[in-house]
Amino acid sequence: MHANRINRIRDRMADEGLDALMVTALPNIFYLSGYTGSTAVVLLTQGNCWFLTDFRYHEQFEQQVWNGYTLVDNTGRKFVEDILPSLADAKSIKRIGFEAAHATYTALQKLQVSSELEFTPTMGWVEDLRIIKDEKEIELLRASVRLNEQVFEASLRIIGPDATEADLAAEIHYQALKLGAKGYSFDPIIASGPNSSKPHAGFSLSKLVPGAPLTIDMGVVLDGYCSDMTRTVFYKDCPADWAKIYQLVREAKDRAFAAIRPGKLGKEIDAVARDLIYKAGYEGKFEHGLGHGVGIEVHEQPTLSRMGEQELKPGMVVSDEPGIYLPGQGGIRIEDMVVVRENGAENLNELATELRIVG
Amino acid sequence: MHANRINRIRDRMADEGLDALMVTALPNIFYLSGYTGSTAVVLLTQGNCWFLTDFRYHEQFEQQVWNGYTLVDNTGRKFVEDILPSLADAKSIKRIGFEAAHATYTALQKLQVSSELEFTPTMGWVEDLRIIKDEKEIELLRASVRLNEQVFEASLRIIGPDATEADLAAEIHYQALKLGAKGYSFDPIIASGPNSSKPHAGFSLSKLVPGAPLTIDMGVVLDGYCSDMTRTVFYKDCPADWAKIYQLVREAKDRAFAAIRPGKLGKEIDAVARDLIYKAGYEGKFEHGLGHGVGIEVHEQPTLSRMGEQELKPGMVVSDEPGIYLPGQGGIRIEDMVVVRENGAENLNELATELRIVG
Repeated sequence: MHANRINRIRDRMADEGLDALMVTALPNIFYLSGYTGSTAVVLLTQGNCWFLTDFRYHEQFEQQVWNGYTLVDNTGRKFVEDILPSLADAKSIKRIGFEAAHATYTALQKLQVSSELEFTPTMGWVEDLRIIKDEKEIELLRASVRLNEQVFEASLRIIGPDATEADLAAEIHYQALKLGAKGYSFDPIIASGPNSSKPHAGFSLSKLVPGAPLTIDMGVVLDGYCSDMTRTVFYKDCPADWAKIYQLVREAKDRAFAAIRPGKLGKEIDAVARDLIYKAGYEGKFEHGLGHGVGIEVHEQPTLSRMGEQELKPGMVVSDEPGIYLPGQGGIRIEDMVVVRENGAENLNELATELRIVG
Repeated sequence: MHANRINRIRDRMADEGLDALMVTALPNIFYLSGYTGSTAVVLLTQGNCWFLTDFRYHEQFEQQVWNGYTLVDNTGRKFVEDILPSLADAKSIKRIGFEAAHATYTALQKLQVSSELEFTPTMGWVEDLRIIKDEKEIELLRASVRLNEQVFEASLRIIGPDATEADLAAEIHYQALKLGAKGYSFDPIIASGPNSSKPHAGFSLSKLVPGAPLTIDMGVVLDGYCSDMTRTVFYKDCPADWAKIYQLVREAKDRAFAAIRPGKLGKEIDAVARDLIYKAGYEGKFEHGLGHGVGIEVHEQPTLSRMGEQELKPGMVVSDEPGIYLPGQGGIRIEDMVVVRENGAENLNELATELRIVG
């Protein structure tokens, strides 16, 4: 698996005349090696896979990293001055690609100390591989989605007259780790009543508002893969006006799902949901994109939005999450994760989206 | 408070001939504005404070951001092409500083589309202010430290024969949010027995190892300020060999604390703890730095390590965290947070560091 990924990078290096690729983004390092630590650099050449990290992570290297890599201790050592000359294939390394979207100005300045080396920007080489998930990755994503649904159900049990948004967030964090997650894709959004009109609300110390939407947007990380799910439920009661909006959002989600298939552009799927919502009288009330890729990171390519020019392909995994937000009143969002398949799409979520009243 | 900070930035802009400073690092934006959202750019000129964010964060702008700022909606708009020309003082903006340590190559390429603008790297202008905490910030850090200690105590109650490292991590997350934290400074390290020999262990599904160190390194975020504390306790029993090592680490921490005062260099404080540990026979068993600044971020300047060339000044807040790690056996680390004061230092932690047996 790692060998195959690295070979594809090597082919591209050969095509574009690079002697080495320096990978610094941690999600890309995980994809190419299995490493989950927080400090490392991968340097790929045609002949070697170098793994640079400091003494704190040497044990973790031994435990996690694919055995095609050779560890290079970089404790207190500078890359160009100290490390490069010490590599077995040092002499063949002149033109080195760096990850342009991740390398900072300061980091690049530190590299550009030798006139013999040519550091060359590359854009998303590893991300271009990551955008298509293989079946093993899809199973990992499915497991992450399933766990996320379990955490959701387990956490809802604490809902009651004294429960705050923060209590629910605490319970979600607790249940996630108790049920086996290694962490969270992002801090959960727990937004009740008027708070739910903000798509990125976070959570507050407010108690849940009866007869109003309660939006819960959450995700866990399991074996390195993220889940991302939103359910809007109603605490105590659901007024008819909100029920109507809920069904509209749900229909937008379902229609977008039905439209997903290879060859469609991200913006075409976005338009399916958006047109339905706007034509029902909610123009301007659904301003975020319909969805985004999910994988090792919770926000990846492709994007399903008005800017989504990318063509969908089998193995892409995206969120499908339309919403309607009424400032000062509240908002509704429903989100599942979807795999693009040869003949359509597969929904990774099993948790029902029927209107649900809790508490 | 924000006005004062911005004026100091403006003085430096004037000194260095910049018409504007573009601030993109979120901790710096929080420091200059109060904003805790996840997408924004601050643009400071001598006459204006511009706050750029998209429609998702306009409500949050109104609620959080210091009222000296003017909101600029950047939804779908490009900075140089669309936004800059629309600003009231557009004509006076030619030379714009960017944050070199945070701007990526890709982001800079997007900016460099006009020959009339000169984007100029700046290094840590806002960080240079943040390194000295004022009394209000120190009180916020104290509150974060106090909450972190409460979370620690509340979480220890679950320790028992069936508890795993992950259970303890789950309980810490739960208690943190229940007790009022907005989040965590970092994922907790819960390392029992041999796991504790890795300074950055994370947590596993292993049960706690009796008669061995249990290292708990944790921090919460409260009102935007981080705490960071480590305690190594012993589950069930503490063998005499470990007790001796524990007391050595504790003495190293206390001696380093006693040495902290204005005018000392970071590396001098590091050496106080390191020399004691190395001379006691543990050379090579304490390889990380003694400490680091803590504030809006959990790792800030200054550094207390062998590389710590910076002079300590009143208002700096640093961690003091020596350790001894024996691979395959376990490790001990004790960490408090310390304020540099005019005549010495003040320990923000109140939780005792005496050897403690739990369970």
